[in-house]
Amino acid sequence: MLTRIDHIGIACFDLDKTVEFYRATYGFEVFHSEVNEEQGVREAMLKINETSDGGASYLQLLEPTREDSAVGKWLAKNGEGVHHIAFGTADVDADSEAIRDKGVRVLYEQPRRGSMDSRITFLHPKDCHGVLTELVTAATPGEADH
Amino acid sequence: MLTRIDHIGIACFDLDKTVEFYRATYGFEVFHSEVNEEQGVREAMLKINETSDGGASYLQLLEPTREDSAVGKWLAKNGEGVHHIAFGTADVDADSEAIRDKGVRVLYEQPRRGSMDSRITFLHPKDCHGVLTELVTAATPGEADH
Repeated sequence: MLTRIDHIGIACFDLDKTVEFYRATYGFEVFHSEVNEEQGVREAMLKINETSDGGASYLQLLEPTREDSAVGKWLAKNGEGVHHIAFGTADVDADSEAIRDKGVRVLYEQPRRGSMDSRITFLHPKDCHGVLTELVTAATPGEADH
Repeated sequence: MLTRIDHIGIACFDLDKTVEFYRATYGFEVFHSEVNEEQGVREAMLKINETSDGGASYLQLLEPTREDSAVGKWLAKNGEGVHHIAFGTADVDADSEAIRDKGVRVLYEQPRRGSMDSRITFLHPKDCHGVLTELVTAATPGEADH
């Protein structure tokens, strides 16, 4: 069951400048940053609030590490903006299988590694009214912030 | 101070079909629906979780009521997808003034009426790394859901 808005994924050309925009404009601070070579992104997670399921909601700022990554190609086509949205669940395996059974294309055969050692998958945007949609299970349920 | 992801605004061609997609796929139910003639939208709010500031996070599904509305023009250009993101604050007036003073264009001189009698304003996407950004103060602080 999807129980929270886990994050909003925002593609940007320059991660450092974008992080600075969010800090200077709103006071949002970087909670976590990492490079995900499989996804081809350098990213910063800005924690905005905690959620009623014991998790949290973040902005995820994404800069491609290579032009041929999914985010790199998306940026070249669309420019900066919201790349995807993500819902949190305690069981990404069960939820992605149940959603696949409903005829929505799930992009990975098995969930892969996401931010902060989470497990993630994506749903095809053409099956989701234009919205690239991610499902996330945090590394440690109820300890999403540590 | 911005204390939550209040909602993700998603533009769609057919509100009823999109509501049904979110219900059938994820089990999300309509919490509130209304027509906002000033904004030129028919909308449904799907509540996803409560937040640590006493508010909640929603998906806001938006169908234009007229082609020349902001959402109607956006849909004609972009197709369905994420139209804007919104942060919640206890004081949209103070925050929007402070942000204006930092050089970010605020689209309304004064906040206007948003979903569920909230007060809202928008920040220019070109000043926000491509993200149309809304600021929201709920009608009754701490009672955002009633």
